[in-house]
Amino acid sequence: MSPARPGTVVGLIGSGIGPSLSPQLHEAEADALGLRYVYRRLDLDVLGKAPEEVGELVRAAQLAGYDGLNVTHPCKQLVLEHLDELSPDAAALGAVNTVVLADGRAVGHNTDWSGFARNVDRGLPDAAMDRVVLLGAGGAGAAVAHALLTLGTDRLTVLDVDAARATELARALTGRFGAGRAGGGDLTGLGTAVAAADGLVHATPTGMAAHPGSPVPADLLRPDLWVADIVYRPLATELVTTARERGCRVLDGGGMAVFQAVDSFRLFTGLEPDADRMLAHFAALVDPAGSPVG
Amino acid sequence: MSPARPGTVVGLIGSGIGPSLSPQLHEAEADALGLRYVYRRLDLDVLGKAPEEVGELVRAAQLAGYDGLNVTHPCKQLVLEHLDELSPDAAALGAVNTVVLADGRAVGHNTDWSGFARNVDRGLPDAAMDRVVLLGAGGAGAAVAHALLTLGTDRLTVLDVDAARATELARALTGRFGAGRAGGGDLTGLGTAVAAADGLVHATPTGMAAHPGSPVPADLLRPDLWVADIVYRPLATELVTTARERGCRVLDGGGMAVFQAVDSFRLFTGLEPDADRMLAHFAALVDPAGSPVG
Repeated sequence: MSPARPGTVVGLIGSGIGPSLSPQLHEAEADALGLRYVYRRLDLDVLGKAPEEVGELVRAAQLAGYDGLNVTHPCKQLVLEHLDELSPDAAALGAVNTVVLADGRAVGHNTDWSGFARNVDRGLPDAAMDRVVLLGAGGAGAAVAHALLTLGTDRLTVLDVDAARATELARALTGRFGAGRAGGGDLTGLGTAVAAADGLVHATPTGMAAHPGSPVPADLLRPDLWVADIVYRPLATELVTTARERGCRVLDGGGMAVFQAVDSFRLFTGLEPDADRMLAHFAALVDPAGSPVG
Repeated sequence: MSPARPGTVVGLIGSGIGPSLSPQLHEAEADALGLRYVYRRLDLDVLGKAPEEVGELVRAAQLAGYDGLNVTHPCKQLVLEHLDELSPDAAALGAVNTVVLADGRAVGHNTDWSGFARNVDRGLPDAAMDRVVLLGAGGAGAAVAHALLTLGTDRLTVLDVDAARATELARALTGRFGAGRAGGGDLTGLGTAVAAADGLVHATPTGMAAHPGSPVPADLLRPDLWVADIVYRPLATELVTTARERGCRVLDGGGMAVFQAVDSFRLFTGLEPDADRMLAHFAALVDPAGSPVG
């Protein structure tokens, strides 16, 4: 421990966050860096608070000297009105997953999108990004879409079981990134869109332990298509496994999960964590049997 | 760090607490025990809070998942009404310096008196305690008095520049410990009282760096009188130095300061800290030149 540097206290606000790996991931990295660091769960369900009371939790953490907060479902949008300032990307996305508390101010950031962007940069450094299909237009999908268009995707096709949600996200994206950069629709367009795409990102719950199965027919997975999943429990989703078997370059869900933590950790501490060490730790936590991340 | 045990977050509420040694003392002991532990200063002056707003700070710490709080001047009495429960000794003293936050409840304790009692037990194990003079009837004096009468002092003489404050404390003590166990008066009785006493405890600010001098004429310090000071900055107050020179057994102020921390640490964590290690650390912090504690 560095006696000269005050300890860091951060927390995670959300519902049902008991299984979150963030506390272990952050604390182990802090230990490796010799930082005194505690990461607390502030679980709405445990505290008996409604999601709309997120502002009360932010103020309490601020008054109690917290350095920062991660924010997850169902508070990523609700927290906005309780903050003093937003980073431009958090404002554009309308979603905050990281709050930095310093100098009496609460500043919102979004490291979901930057985490996904770093994940792609690292795992697919030379992949074609021109045309990409995004499956799932919820909050995670919105962050992924922001990352892809920021990374230079020319045309993003957003598909969702709820076509209106997909077209609404596409509309918001073209407003920010330019006409023609995104379009939306329902799942009937999946085959056609994937056939014309360089890559596919999956951002729905399908493939999680509670929602088994693959959201994409195996015969759409051709070897020159890259595939990224954001589900990380398990890391080896049916989509990830099938895509690997069919010769695709694949990013599993660990990278986005870890890099959002990497970026939050840097915002909380001002120090650069070791991303490779965090990736290895994350993989061991999620999947002790040893599927590699990335 | 023990990955199985959640981290501990505690804090100190008070005014002007920047120089407090509690954060370093607690955190170093936690490090030695392999505990993840952060001790935060919640300084009323820094936060722009009035002492009467202490309840807001307690609630914020509770909501933010703190495990406990130390409370110091000027909030040791003000905090009482904001707690769910008091230990019997904290209730008797009407003062709380330690709040345990667990299971949604805030429970007040007082480790100032127990710290002084342990300090005497350890440093003067076979000393006569029948008749003791206490100089200073403020909050620290009240805790010391409670400790002495609990340890078995038959007759405690409380003296203060404010005779009314001394008699009021003595009246409260006889109410709790029995008629005749305590009496109060002003400083004109000091010589007579000390001449008839086994020991003398000093509990006023005299001797602190900002209040130099000795509160007791040197010729009252005879070799068979034990002397305890509660001032610890410096450890070697003029009273402590003079009493040692005159052959008295002496307890400096480090013991009470450390043992209140020992008892708070145990309440916060459920674990027994190493008191000798904390005493040594405290002495090094207060007085790097190396005056021994105890």
